[in-house]
Amino acid sequence: MLYIGVDLGGTGIKAGVVSEQGHILSKGSTPTMIERPYQDIIADIAELCKKVTADAGAQMEDIACIGVGVPGICDPKTGVIPFCTNLGWHEVPFVLEMQKHINLPVYVDNDATVAGYAESIAGVSAGTSSSVFITLGTGVGGGIIINGKPFSGAHGCGSEIGHMILKMDGEMCSCGNEGCFERYASATAIIREARRAAQDIPTCAIMTACGGDLDKINAKIVIHCAKAGDRTAQAVFSDYVKGLAHGIVSIINCLDPEVIVLGGGVSMAGEFLLDAVREAVEPLIFYKTMPHARIELARLGADAGIIGAALLGK
Amino acid sequence: MLYIGVDLGGTGIKAGVVSEQGHILSKGSTPTMIERPYQDIIADIAELCKKVTADAGAQMEDIACIGVGVPGICDPKTGVIPFCTNLGWHEVPFVLEMQKHINLPVYVDNDATVAGYAESIAGVSAGTSSSVFITLGTGVGGGIIINGKPFSGAHGCGSEIGHMILKMDGEMCSCGNEGCFERYASATAIIREARRAAQDIPTCAIMTACGGDLDKINAKIVIHCAKAGDRTAQAVFSDYVKGLAHGIVSIINCLDPEVIVLGGGVSMAGEFLLDAVREAVEPLIFYKTMPHARIELARLGADAGIIGAALLGK
Repeated sequence: MLYIGVDLGGTGIKAGVVSEQGHILSKGSTPTMIERPYQDIIADIAELCKKVTADAGAQMEDIACIGVGVPGICDPKTGVIPFCTNLGWHEVPFVLEMQKHINLPVYVDNDATVAGYAESIAGVSAGTSSSVFITLGTGVGGGIIINGKPFSGAHGCGSEIGHMILKMDGEMCSCGNEGCFERYASATAIIREARRAAQDIPTCAIMTACGGDLDKINAKIVIHCAKAGDRTAQAVFSDYVKGLAHGIVSIINCLDPEVIVLGGGVSMAGEFLLDAVREAVEPLIFYKTMPHARIELARLGADAGIIGAALLGK
Repeated sequence: MLYIGVDLGGTGIKAGVVSEQGHILSKGSTPTMIERPYQDIIADIAELCKKVTADAGAQMEDIACIGVGVPGICDPKTGVIPFCTNLGWHEVPFVLEMQKHINLPVYVDNDATVAGYAESIAGVSAGTSSSVFITLGTGVGGGIIINGKPFSGAHGCGSEIGHMILKMDGEMCSCGNEGCFERYASATAIIREARRAAQDIPTCAIMTACGGDLDKINAKIVIHCAKAGDRTAQAVFSDYVKGLAHGIVSIINCLDPEVIVLGGGVSMAGEFLLDAVREAVEPLIFYKTMPHARIELARLGADAGIIGAALLGK
């Protein structure tokens, strides 16, 4: 059988036909245009599913099911998406609405969860039974794979690892709490600390790289300056790695997975990040002589959303 | 079939024959005497297993398997216990040694994990698929149940939730890290903070209750004084509840279980603790309008170790 995976984002919708092994046979995209009623967006998703099926030379009868990764959560019992902040969705009966267009089983899960699932089937964690995927972007998302399957908890609200508390009474988080992991491990954290540092030390390379405009600082600039040897950027990067490493250790002590996979924008820093994180995690490990999770970079990039979503119902 | 459960502690060994439903049919105990070679201790465990089987009016042929809860970890692949600090054990080939005495499958897991498993079968979380058990004792232990089974991770090192980082750069932990959850949620944390508070405010009820001897402060005294209305004790208790609640929220945001079960010495504070924790957790919940884990007190008490261990191989 074949599977359709949909990666539903705030800007664009991507979909593809995927084999059982996680290979993409066809793919396509269409703009989301989130200002429209959800019914129109879902109609477009269904159209795109039909198009990529035809592009793969397949019939709807060849498709086992449709999976959708959303930047939010989905109640696994009702198929309703209670929240999807980026899309402005509240209580959208997603599965029901999709099935008005296509009579197939529809599975929905969080976008970071499906990306992690894709890595565990066709990516860097392929062949493992348990892994935790961490997206290092504007926020920090998570995907937990246990016994080879995505685990999103009893109410579909799990794997929000960006909102595990890393530093009680620490930096204020957009969720209303203080000291969430993502306040220390997101690209946003790098930018915040780089701004503070550049204000303190205006002669630093970050200030030069952003042309003196603190609003132009991004994670890429800071990492570039750190790689080039700027001490201020190195200190910001080092603090970032410390926060990320402590969060990873929390996850290891809780779930002891086979692999921790780093994805998202900041992971583009590649080996420079990976080496630093591995080095920072090592002395923090609880059972020092026991094997622990490998830490790896995600491999599937932008295709992970389609592949993981497709195989949700496998 | 019947099952034998063994609760191996630093002071005593308890064992019992348990039905599939988690009812104890017979039980017995023997001192551990940890100064002996592990072979002698394991021989005593095997003897006790035979005794409780006879006491239950059963034959060894009626027993499906033996499960053992240990205050440490066990490599699920090799049956070796790499660490068991309380017993001073290192790299003990537990399963192999047990099978020299009794030719049955032997399963070993962490004591907090088996207690949590027992609660999920015959206790407060019975009938649920996912739960997290938190023991609030000298340290903080954890038991994670997912899909109705204990989950101890890929290398048997998971569910060490007491060593998730709750406050990076916080209180020094015996594990070598700073800010571990157990530094804020154990009985030890209550005692530490009560000593500090009693030194600052020598007129407080805690000081009176311990007869002016700070070394006599224990969690029970502090909770008693807090219940009685002493402001210093209430402040210590309130800080404790804050730390516990933040750790629970980390677990909920990561695993979103159906139930969080509080066990261990501090949970003897009962509804006084439970009400305070529930109240402190509520405003910290991420998805505010979604259902989230119930927080409950453990019900099985001292029998949980035998019941949960027995059913490890079920």
